[in-house]
Amino acid sequence: MTNELIALRDRLRDFTREREWHRYHTPKNLAIALIVEAAELAEHFQWLTPEESQSPQDGKREKIREEMADVLIYLIELADALDVDLAAAAHDKIAKNALKYPVEKARGNALKYDEL
Amino acid sequence: MTNELIALRDRLRDFTREREWHRYHTPKNLAIALIVEAAELAEHFQWLTPEESQSPQDGKREKIREEMADVLIYLIELADALDVDLAAAAHDKIAKNALKYPVEKARGNALKYDEL
Amino acid sequence: MTNELIALRDRLRDFTREREWHRYHTPKNLAIALIVEAAELAEHFQWLTPEESQSPQDGKREKIREEMADVLIYLIELADALDVDLAAAAHDKIAKNALKYPVEKARGNALKYDEL
Amino acid sequence: MTNELIALRDRLRDFTREREWHRYHTPKNLAIALIVEAAELAEHFQWLTPEESQSPQDGKREKIREEMADVLIYLIELADALDVDLAAAAHDKIAKNALKYPVEKARGNALKYDEL
Repeated sequence: MTNELIALRDRLRDFTREREWHRYHTPKNLAIALIVEAAELAEHFQWLTPEESQSPQDGKREKIREEMADVLIYLIELADALDVDLAAAAHDKIAKNALKYPVEKARGNALKYDEL
Repeated sequence: MTNELIALRDRLRDFTREREWHRYHTPKNLAIALIVEAAELAEHFQWLTPEESQSPQDGKREKIREEMADVLIYLIELADALDVDLAAAAHDKIAKNALKYPVEKARGNALKYDEL
Repeated sequence: MTNELIALRDRLRDFTREREWHRYHTPKNLAIALIVEAAELAEHFQWLTPEESQSPQDGKREKIREEMADVLIYLIELADALDVDLAAAAHDKIAKNALKYPVEKARGNALKYDEL
Repeated sequence: MTNELIALRDRLRDFTREREWHRYHTPKNLAIALIVEAAELAEHFQWLTPEESQSPQDGKREKIREEMADVLIYLIELADALDVDLAAAAHDKIAKNALKYPVEKARGNALKYDEL
C-alpha cells in the first residue's frame, strides 16, 4: 500500500538528486517557485467571469492541469525540505478551521473568522 | 486502503457543503485564495538568508506548516472543482520535466529548459 | 518642480539608511516583498463578485489603499536597487503594448496578443 | 508641470478606452493581473543567490525592467478604478511605518513591528 504523496516525494527526490539541484532547492527558493507557479495558474482565470472560470476551454484545461501539478510538486519538495507531513498538516488545519468557522455562524457568508 | 488526497477531498467537500460556501468556490476565487496562501508562506522566508531558511525557528515552523496546509487545501478544492486528478497530473508533469531537463544537460545548473 | 517618484525614492532611501536595512534589501528579497504585498492586496477582493469589487466597504477601502502603498514602496525600492527609471519603463511598455494589441484587433476582447 | 503618475494614468485611460477593455478591468481582475506580473518579476530572481540578484545579466535586465513596468501599469489602473492617489498613499504609509519601526528599535534587524 503506497501513499500517494510519499510516492511523489520519492520520485522528486530522485529527480533532484540526479540533476544535482539540491543547492538551488533551499526552502526560500522553493517558496518563491511555488508562488510563481500559483500565479501562472491564476493567470488562466485572470480575465474570466466567475461563470467562465467554471468550465475552461479545452486548450486551457491541459495548461491549468499542468500548473496545478507544478504547485503540488514544489509544495511536496518544500515539505520534504522542512520535514513536514503534508496530509497530516492539512487534516490538522481542517480541524482548526472547523473551530474558527462554526457551521451556524459561517453558513452562507464569506466573512473572516474575526468578523463572524 | 484509502488514498490520502481523496480522503482530504471528501473531508473538504463536507466542510464546504455544511457551510454553504459553494457559490464562493469558483475556480477563479480558489485560484486567488491559493496564491494568497502561497504568498503568506513565502512571507516567512522573505528576509532570511538561504541558510536561515533551512531551519526556521520553532515558533515559525508551526506557522509555516499551517500555510503549507492552506496551500494544499485550496489546491485540492480547485482540483475537485475542475475534476483534476492531482497525483496523476503531478506524475505526468514529472515525466514531461524529465524530457525537458535531461540529466546530462541540466546537471548542476538552474537554466530554464529553453536555455539549456 | 519635483518628480513624485524621485521624491518617494529619496524618502525611502533615508528610511532604509537610518534603519541599516540595506543588507536585507537585495533585489531578490524586494521582489518577494513586492509579491507578498500584492497578494495582501488581492486578498481583499478574494471572495467578492466583480460588482462588489468595484466599491469596497469603507473599512476595507483604507486597508486596500495601504496595500497599494506597500506595493508602490517596494517597487520603487527595487527600481532604485536596479537603477531603473520606473516612469520611463512604463511609457516604453505602453508603447510596446500598443503594437502588440492594435485597436482593431484587441477591441472588446481579452485575448492574449499571441491569440489575436 | 505634469505629474508623472497622472500622466501615466491618463495615457492608460486612453489605451483602455480605445480597446473597450473597461468591463475586464474590475478592481478584482486588476488585482489578479498585478500579482501575476509581480510573480513574473520574482521569477527572474527565483534561483539566484542574493549576490547574483544584485546584478542581473544583460538579457535579463531588460525583461526585469518590463515586468516592473507591468506592475506599475496595473497598480496605476487599480488606483484609478478605486480613486486612490498613489503618491499620497505611499507618503502616508511611510509616515506610518516610521512610527511602527522607530530607528532605535529597528536598526539592523528585520523583525516585524510586533516582534520589536
